[in-house]
Amino acid sequence: LRRGIGEIIYTPGKSDDQLVKIARSIAEHRSNAIFSRVSKEKYELLKTVLPDLEYREDARLGLCCFEPPRERGNVAVIAAGSSDKPVAEEAAGVAEFAGCHVERFYDVGVAGIHRLFNLLPKIRKADAIVVAAGMEGALPSVVAGLVSSIVIAVPTSVGYGASFGGLAALLSMLNACSGGVVVVNIDNGVGAGLAASLVATK
Amino acid sequence: LRRGIGEIIYTPGKSDDQLVKIARSIAEHRSNAIFSRVSKEKYELLKTVLPDLEYREDARLGLCCFEPPRERGNVAVIAAGSSDKPVAEEAAGVAEFAGCHVERFYDVGVAGIHRLFNLLPKIRKADAIVVAAGMEGALPSVVAGLVSSIVIAVPTSVGYGASFGGLAALLSMLNACSGGVVVVNIDNGVGAGLAASLVATK
Amino acid sequence: LRRGIGEIIYTPGKSDDQLVKIARSIAEHRSNAIFSRVSKEKYELLKTVLPDLEYREDARLGLCCFEPPRERGNVAVIAAGSSDKPVAEEAAGVAEFAGCHVERFYDVGVAGIHRLFNLLPKIRKADAIVVAAGMEGALPSVVAGLVSSIVIAVPTSVGYGASFGGLAALLSMLNACSGGVVVVNIDNGVGAGLAASLVATK
Amino acid sequence: LRRGIGEIIYTPGKSDDQLVKIARSIAEHRSNAIFSRVSKEKYELLKTVLPDLEYREDARLGLCCFEPPRERGNVAVIAAGSSDKPVAEEAAGVAEFAGCHVERFYDVGVAGIHRLFNLLPKIRKADAIVVAAGMEGALPSVVAGLVSSIVIAVPTSVGYGASFGGLAALLSMLNACSGGVVVVNIDNGVGAGLAASLVATK
Amino acid sequence: LRRGIGEIIYTPGKSDDQLVKIARSIAEHRSNAIFSRVSKEKYELLKTVLPDLEYREDARLGLCCFEPPRERGNVAVIAAGSSDKPVAEEAAGVAEFAGCHVERFYDVGVAGIHRLFNLLPKIRKADAIVVAAGMEGALPSVVAGLVSSIVIAVPTSVGYGASFGGLAALLSMLNACSGGVVVVNIDNGVGAGLAASLVATK
Amino acid sequence: LRRGIGEIIYTPGKSDDQLVKIARSIAEHRSNAIFSRVSKEKYELLKTVLPDLEYREDARLGLCCFEPPRERGNVAVIAAGSSDKPVAEEAAGVAEFAGCHVERFYDVGVAGIHRLFNLLPKIRKADAIVVAAGMEGALPSVVAGLVSSIVIAVPTSVGYGASFGGLAALLSMLNACSGGVVVVNIDNGVGAGLAASLVATK
Amino acid sequence: LRRGIGEIIYTPGKSDDQLVKIARSIAEHRSNAIFSRVSKEKYELLKTVLPDLEYREDARLGLCCFEPPRERGNVAVIAAGSSDKPVAEEAAGVAEFAGCHVERFYDVGVAGIHRLFNLLPKIRKADAIVVAAGMEGALPSVVAGLVSSIVIAVPTSVGYGASFGGLAALLSMLNACSGGVVVVNIDNGVGAGLAASLVATK
Amino acid sequence: LRRGIGEIIYTPGKSDDQLVKIARSIAEHRSNAIFSRVSKEKYELLKTVLPDLEYREDARLGLCCFEPPRERGNVAVIAAGSSDKPVAEEAAGVAEFAGCHVERFYDVGVAGIHRLFNLLPKIRKADAIVVAAGMEGALPSVVAGLVSSIVIAVPTSVGYGASFGGLAALLSMLNACSGGVVVVNIDNGVGAGLAASLVATK
Ligand SMILES: Nc1ncnc2c1ncn2[C@@H]1O[C@H](COP(=O)(O)O)[C@@H](O)[C@H]1O
Ligand SMILES: Nc1ncnc2c1ncn2[C@@H]1O[C@H](COP(=O)(O)O)[C@@H](O)[C@H]1O
Ligand SMILES: Nc1ncnc2c1ncn2[C@@H]1O[C@H](COP(=O)(O)O)[C@@H](O)[C@H]1O
Ligand SMILES: Nc1ncnc2c1ncn2[C@@H]1O[C@H](COP(=O)(O)O)[C@@H](O)[C@H]1O
Ligand SMILES: [Mg+2]
Ligand SMILES: [Mg+2]
Ligand SMILES: [Mg+2]
Ligand SMILES: [Mg+2]
Ligand SMILES: [Mg+2]
Ligand SMILES: [Mg+2]
Ligand SMILES: [Mg+2]
Ligand SMILES: [Mg+2]
Repeated sequence: LRRGIGEIIYTPGKSDDQLVKIARSIAEHRSNAIFSRVSKEKYELLKTVLPDLEYREDARLGLCCFEPPRERGNVAVIAAGSSDKPVAEEAAGVAEFAGCHVERFYDVGVAGIHRLFNLLPKIRKADAIVVAAGMEGALPSVVAGLVSSIVIAVPTSVGYGASFGGLAALLSMLNACSGGVVVVNIDNGVGAGLAASLVATK
Repeated sequence: LRRGIGEIIYTPGKSDDQLVKIARSIAEHRSNAIFSRVSKEKYELLKTVLPDLEYREDARLGLCCFEPPRERGNVAVIAAGSSDKPVAEEAAGVAEFAGCHVERFYDVGVAGIHRLFNLLPKIRKADAIVVAAGMEGALPSVVAGLVSSIVIAVPTSVGYGASFGGLAALLSMLNACSGGVVVVNIDNGVGAGLAASLVATK
Repeated sequence: LRRGIGEIIYTPGKSDDQLVKIARSIAEHRSNAIFSRVSKEKYELLKTVLPDLEYREDARLGLCCFEPPRERGNVAVIAAGSSDKPVAEEAAGVAEFAGCHVERFYDVGVAGIHRLFNLLPKIRKADAIVVAAGMEGALPSVVAGLVSSIVIAVPTSVGYGASFGGLAALLSMLNACSGGVVVVNIDNGVGAGLAASLVATK
Repeated sequence: LRRGIGEIIYTPGKSDDQLVKIARSIAEHRSNAIFSRVSKEKYELLKTVLPDLEYREDARLGLCCFEPPRERGNVAVIAAGSSDKPVAEEAAGVAEFAGCHVERFYDVGVAGIHRLFNLLPKIRKADAIVVAAGMEGALPSVVAGLVSSIVIAVPTSVGYGASFGGLAALLSMLNACSGGVVVVNIDNGVGAGLAASLVATK
Repeated sequence: LRRGIGEIIYTPGKSDDQLVKIARSIAEHRSNAIFSRVSKEKYELLKTVLPDLEYREDARLGLCCFEPPRERGNVAVIAAGSSDKPVAEEAAGVAEFAGCHVERFYDVGVAGIHRLFNLLPKIRKADAIVVAAGMEGALPSVVAGLVSSIVIAVPTSVGYGASFGGLAALLSMLNACSGGVVVVNIDNGVGAGLAASLVATK
Repeated sequence: LRRGIGEIIYTPGKSDDQLVKIARSIAEHRSNAIFSRVSKEKYELLKTVLPDLEYREDARLGLCCFEPPRERGNVAVIAAGSSDKPVAEEAAGVAEFAGCHVERFYDVGVAGIHRLFNLLPKIRKADAIVVAAGMEGALPSVVAGLVSSIVIAVPTSVGYGASFGGLAALLSMLNACSGGVVVVNIDNGVGAGLAASLVATK
Repeated sequence: LRRGIGEIIYTPGKSDDQLVKIARSIAEHRSNAIFSRVSKEKYELLKTVLPDLEYREDARLGLCCFEPPRERGNVAVIAAGSSDKPVAEEAAGVAEFAGCHVERFYDVGVAGIHRLFNLLPKIRKADAIVVAAGMEGALPSVVAGLVSSIVIAVPTSVGYGASFGGLAALLSMLNACSGGVVVVNIDNGVGAGLAASLVATK
Repeated sequence: LRRGIGEIIYTPGKSDDQLVKIARSIAEHRSNAIFSRVSKEKYELLKTVLPDLEYREDARLGLCCFEPPRERGNVAVIAAGSSDKPVAEEAAGVAEFAGCHVERFYDVGVAGIHRLFNLLPKIRKADAIVVAAGMEGALPSVVAGLVSSIVIAVPTSVGYGASFGGLAALLSMLNACSGGVVVVNIDNGVGAGLAASLVATK
């Protein structure tokens, strides 16, 4: 049992055989589980073994819930651009599955910082704030300067050229000069959602 | 006011003039403040303006406390090797300054994992766990597999050759396959301690 | 004759013509040989020339054995995650082909370190231990702290984002603070199996 | 004649002999010239040949002005942190030497974005805006979202660990999602000031 | 309103749904807009919502013009090789859309520098000069030594091997020893065209 | 007890206090120990606590031997250039301390490959072969093609420019196309000597 | 006219239109030309305009010869592995087209250095020696230690993992400790062949 | 005997003992030799053993000539900036020592390309052309487009920031789109001079 939210299975690189075997073991033990980066095809496969598996296409998550999660606190999930949505949804999905109340704030890039300011009163209510951003990854730094909760920064691989697959955003976030910013791997919405849940646990 | 613990001033690269000016402003506003990476010489300089400034040599911190911090929860600070101690002390010092109760667990490298197991009951009492490690940076991943609190991983620049100044440990931590690991910049004990304080706030 | 186990032919990037020519030369000299990274299609092609060629699909190996190998010692092959299996099987296949007795220990990641502890008595019987791991590549360091044989670490390209195609695991393993860890190229199961055979030779 | 502001001589790596020779040629032709990265010692040396050489210690510039520059437009120079000041001063000095009217806005980091907002009316008057920032280098992106002039971003080597000598800030600025941001080399205040002058030329 | 040329929408990574939604909002507000990196298919999709959308196939741009742009100055767009044309056309297209008069100078690589010399009188008429080059990216430096306007350098990903996807050209341009060179992201014709327009605004 | 050769203490980055404390604990338990990268000054310090500590200046090792090591097999240590000697001596010293019989073969670079050929009969007698090389790091690959024992390759930081502190040699060795090559960290003579001892254990 | 061997056209990234236009100009001026990296399809296209175009499939070259080349000296082309053949053939093809007499020596890797020794008398007859090698790229260094002509090293992208697309071989060759080695870009057979021709010109 | 110019000894990283030993062996065999990167102190040391050793301070070379070199052809050595002079002099010194006639062309950067044009008639007389350049390293590409001899490019570590110790110039030169450019290691004047000598040998 991983911190009360069950197993998290990263599906890419696993064969159909391996996935079915994992699904069967989950079905048998009736344990909660999350499948991540699930394609439509893989979902259909898993559903043959786990008929109640919920599919969140936006988030590429397969959620398998045998017992309801404990109740947790508030999590805000902010995304800089519309291309960062899949990663943000992954974080939101995991946090919700873990029992958090999640508010989404999308399309709040640093290029139009005024949008962020209007949303601040709502964002400040969160116990933990996930910020997903690609390209220059400046948003977590700006947000952290305006709130007092922890900011969990997720660099995304959105961008081209000198973004080097998310490296620019990753480095940017690691160097955030505002205090209270912590970072997870590029595109790691699952890790961000899980960390947010741990923080938002009273 | 930065999350109730006052200003944090990174001293390297600042001239004596700039530091004295900052110290004067702090003295005037009687605001809490932390000076980081403070050399003995710089400490003496700052003390001329802030006579009550406390110096933690191990942590290279100068702590300036006008009003006692709010009370916060428990933080565990784990260090892999003895060379990681300055970074670990920096995290511990900041967390203590912010009002946390801090327990230190040093010299708990993955090369002698049994030491870690004996300490687990104590470590598990923490609301947030900071893990500082250099070289291969494997410790946060191992710790996170054994606890249920969030693990704030601090890569250190301890090592040589292919450690590339802490890059190996940083990448290792970002790829931690155990859930619940978040990462800060190389040698960033201040950031880790601050994040731990935010998490350990009830 | 390369260390008594015959030629090892890396098949990717070789044309059908080149492969048939190599296979013919092997058939003619009746020398033992290993084809690595063999696709199903390439295997069918090679079989037309070498009808007794054995195919290990999991390991992507084609094994061509004209004379039985000398007897060698015990090799343990440990894999961190299920996605590391192809690389681990490649190492195991080469070691077996070279005459070693191989025990496999799969799905023993650092995130659930207790599994490793249960297996230690068996692992300690090996003359050489191969450890394949992707992502943060922490496993070889942990294993090496618990055994007294040499640990041959194989970083795998399993992971995403800041794993940079296995670079994170590679650097981690090169910086292993436990003694007795040596490293081969990313995904180089062949090299690890061959090195293990050389060590496990009495 | 380089765009009407005379030669710009980068002094590091040049021997005393080479510098004296260059200074003599300037004295002879009575051409305007800028010496950059000038230490106190080098300045004294150059002054023996060019007695009217002006020294700007903050900017590490030696300015040699035989004929007054043409008049140019307004340039704003913004610096994120106090450690970025030398680079910002270098840009400001070059722009002033070229005939621009320069306004300085220092200590305007993204961690306290409100300061930026108060200064916007003044900043918007500039024909070209130089923004110097280290660490995560987020400031140019934020500024560019709020103004309509071109933003010339100068990454600085201020930072540590994963800032990799200014690389993090450089990549961040190259990936700025706000339009109208262009970038010069790390710590290249001279280049930024020169580019700003060219833009602010009516 | 972004500097008087309307929204710029980067289409890759956006779903059909997202694009249609953006197009509808543009149609409703009758605001000028540029879609970048538009495939033939995406163009057909967007046209169903924006029937007057102009497609520049060479430039991969979709231009949506409800009100004519303000008049701006002269921009020269120089491309080193014929493979750099798409990026150059992207810059030219954006500058034209913004109201500039654009002259194109293609196939002017450093390998045949004499071609450049013949074109200099025309190039020197431009208020801003965009130079797109891949491989060694030497052209902006050479051009900047021969003109007095600002040079906006766009590294392209044209090349192979040690060009590392445009990195070689990018670094080359950032280190341009001629003054007056500024740089945008690899393949970022949009950014270069926009910056040129801002400079060429009287 | 680490594989029967006692503790190995990496001295750089440890304070005098820390070193004295470690030395005292060793003196008390009368356990064998190796101090690595020991400066003359640090050696004098350690000797005050451990009067029998042997100093190998070439190898920068401090050897502390309370009980004689078990007997082990033959190890060959080959060094490409004379600047690689300190690393080679470190490996040789550790292997000798562990009970191996060590033969040294220095100045055997690939630039004069004939020297290597004359030494082959002697080299082939070793149970394990350590090869230290900097710059292009080609030697391990060449050696491994000529022997049947395992080759433990140690890249050294000898070189300049594109050797990038030993990175070139490291990558070269990881890509060795000859079978039977394993690699340790840059300049890690200790690790190579320890691995050789484990292999040369009958 | 480029050094007496005509234009060299790199075909990837050029559209059919662009290629036809180039071919027409060549046909019109009846100038010698080389098309590189030519696919079967592109060859058919070019042949419609240049009916005498010769196709070397192995080398991916299209050779267009209107007037016979001047006579030049001897060039040896050595390839380490069979996968390096396309690059080696590219170099050989260009050198032959330029008028050199070319001898090929393939499959001469450092793993079986004895093969090289047998061929030395022939190799030493060359005025210039091209050596193509991937993976660890050690061969040029070994060859250069045994001959007195210049060695033009071509790193190839053959390999996987830490070969990083030819980077390992490239760095290795740049650090060659044998004198007389010069290097061209990864997979740049054309450049190597051209350089060899220039050297082999009496 | 290495290509008729004797041993070349790289002195950094060699102890005084090692250097004296090498010098004695040279004195004994009366063989020509070049010591590179020789400091004033090391020169004095070597002179005690080799009293006729000539010191070229600019080039940091110690030249030891027992028998006059064979006569060779013409070599041009071009340097982009005055800081590139030490590397250029190293190349020139080695070529002269090998018997070439060397012409120097310094301070011919791409920023003032007209200077290059005036010198072309002289440069074109060389059998081999060495071009040393730092920062963006564009000069070899420009030169190669204007001459028909081979161009041996030496990247120098001159620069700062994104020059990354010569990496930018190195990559630039490897990607030179003009034909006939070959490259040596960063700051490797010795290698360039030696290669030029080999080419300029009739
Ligand atoms: N999967 C593999 N990984 C690394 N090296 C390999 C592999 N398979 C074969 N080799 C080695 O690669 C070389 C084959 O080179 P070639 O077949 O000539 O391109 C031989 O030295 C083999 O030992
Ligand atoms: N080709 C392009 N390259 C760089 N930035 C672009 C490009 N096209 C659009 N943009 C910018 O990218 C941002 C669009 O972000 P979004 O559409 O929210 O993902 C805007 O700030 C645009 O100005
Ligand atoms: N020169 C060395 N290179 C690599 N590892 C070393 C070296 N010397 C000691 N070690 C290892 O580094 C670790 C010492 O960590 P610590 O002394 O706690 O900082 C031990 O695991 C040693 O085996
Ligand atoms: N400045 C230099 N740059 C590159 N290689 C050099 C230089 N000086 C000497 N060498 C080469 O380095 C090798 C010397 O190796 P060693 O003196 O044994 O460390 C010889 O092959 C020389 O040709
Ligand atoms: Mg962003
Ligand atoms: Mg560690
Ligand atoms: Mg792992
Ligand atoms: Mg900043
Ligand atoms: Mg170019
Ligand atoms: Mg070497
Ligand atoms: Mg090779
Ligand atoms: Mg240059």
